Amino acid sequence: MPMYVVGHKIPDSDSICGAIALAYLKNQIGEAAIAARLGELSPETAFILDRFGFEAPEFKERYAGEEVYIVDHSELTQAPDDIAQATIVGIVDHHKLGDLTTSTPLECWIRPVGCSNTVIKMMYDFYSVEIPADIAGIMLCAILSDTVIFKSPTCTTADIKCVEALAEIAGVEDYKALGMEMFKVKSAVEGTPARDLVMRDFKDFNMNGNLVGIGQLEVIDLSVFDDIKAELEADIAALKAEGNRHSVLLLLTDIMKEGSEVLVVSDDSELTSRAYGKATENGRVWLDGVLSRKKQVVPPLQDAFA
Amino acid sequence: MPMYVVGHKIPDSDSICGAIALAYLKNQIGEAAIAARLGELSPETAFILDRFGFEAPEFKERYAGEEVYIVDHSELTQAPDDIAQATIVGIVDHHKLGDLTTSTPLECWIRPVGCSNTVIKMMYDFYSVEIPADIAGIMLCAILSDTVIFKSPTCTTADIKCVEALAEIAGVEDYKALGMEMFKVKSAVEGTPARDLVMRDFKDFNMNGNLVGIGQLEVIDLSVFDDIKAELEADIAALKAEGNRHSVLLLLTDIMKEGSEVLVVSDDSELTSRAYGKATENGRVWLDGVLSRKKQVVPPLQDAFA
Repeated sequence: MPMYVVGHKIPDSDSICGAIALAYLKNQIGEAAIAARLGELSPETAFILDRFGFEAPEFKERYAGEEVYIVDHSELTQAPDDIAQATIVGIVDHHKLGDLTTSTPLECWIRPVGCSNTVIKMMYDFYSVEIPADIAGIMLCAILSDTVIFKSPTCTTADIKCVEALAEIAGVEDYKALGMEMFKVKSAVEGTPARDLVMRDFKDFNMNGNLVGIGQLEVIDLSVFDDIKAELEADIAALKAEGNRHSVLLLLTDIMKEGSEVLVVSDDSELTSRAYGKATENGRVWLDGVLSRKKQVVPPLQDAFA
Repeated sequence: MPMYVVGHKIPDSDSICGAIALAYLKNQIGEAAIAARLGELSPETAFILDRFGFEAPEFKERYAGEEVYIVDHSELTQAPDDIAQATIVGIVDHHKLGDLTTSTPLECWIRPVGCSNTVIKMMYDFYSVEIPADIAGIMLCAILSDTVIFKSPTCTTADIKCVEALAEIAGVEDYKALGMEMFKVKSAVEGTPARDLVMRDFKDFNMNGNLVGIGQLEVIDLSVFDDIKAELEADIAALKAEGNRHSVLLLLTDIMKEGSEVLVVSDDSELTSRAYGKATENGRVWLDGVLSRKKQVVPPLQDAFA
């Protein structure tokens, strides 16, 4: 019976490319594995798979009775709904340790680096398995995406070295140009419904018993949001009510100016003051230098709920 | 500020030797680290440290404000009481994934092998750090202890290869003889108070909201318990009441006959029937082939509570 390798809900490029790369590795070492996904591809991920000639992994929501290898998170809220009825055989991740638990021993490859695919590269090295050029290409793109082409504070020297090695294998000469091409695809928001944009990279967190949703849109120029910001605000307010959430934050990240405007709806009007030392004005706050949800947005917020 | 490397409460040889071995490795790669322990050494562990010329790690119970690297578990009940006020920077383990969580990214080296020291050997290999002979000696003993000299079903080929490599480095010619010597030390129970024996290798688990304590004594001949079994039974009954536990189990494991007699006090008289398909008689049940608490005792029990 093959295991399923699957990333988080509302999959990003790291979840999708990581599932494909890890499933390939597992098959190479004699453990049958199938890459799967919990949701639709983002335009960025579709661009990456198309660029290197991959189909989308199998869309699959139910895992009861299956063996599952989890990619890019260790949180119940981000895992398949029926994960408690599955057997988690492994986790590869680069986030804080979440609330997934198991009843049997497993493997966890978790490192404080910029991207799960950097950890997957370590797994290939550990097992001495050669990375095919096309898989190196999608792993490379996932790392460039997660590290915002090395600008994110989550980026480590391990990520940079990994990208350089993968670019060599993939035959990508100018990986920064490829990264910019990718972020241009990501920046094309015009004509997309507000809900689709809010949900494009959205994660729910359990913060001391409170459900907090945080979305992020990374673009090369925030002016693309000028005409739709009010729509986005109305939508996160709706999302908060629908999901019975304590708060919903939407990060509009400018990867060139290197900062984020955060749109906030919350039961607690002091939330950003306590978490980031800066109050919202009309539900908006600019956080200079903030590019990383994982490293700069979630931990202070979690502390504010403690 | 150095990090503390610490195993679980009521430390076994894997927790103590692992803390020493990992702290040494961390210092070698430029990360200041101090080995620590949460409790007294068992006679087995004292024998190992004495054999290879080590002092006991620092006894330390409070970790608030410190950076902590956790060894040999990922369970709140087995961690320092104030772990929520500390920063967990890493976990090396070989058990099921427990309920420890963090608010920042960390490293987790968790593998489904027989011993945390086998995983620590992988870490040495990853960082290309040479293992000193004396550290190889204590790591070797920890693996022989956890795998019951390779008899435990938790033992993997990775553990066996690791022991062979470590024996070479440590200059131990007959590691099985060393293992038997160690288990003879472990089998000397005469004259030890019942409570000390029960607590020697005792772990509390949160099983679906119920506190379940499981102790284990591994000996080379169960007859050493003939005169004290009633005392042990009285003591686990007392321990159950004191700690408001749902159940306390004490595994008396015969490593030569390869099975365990389990002494049981529980709020649920059907517990072993549901977990292991075998009822207790007068609070005792023989489980043939059962050597491993982690692999053979805990998972079915957890399922029985689900």
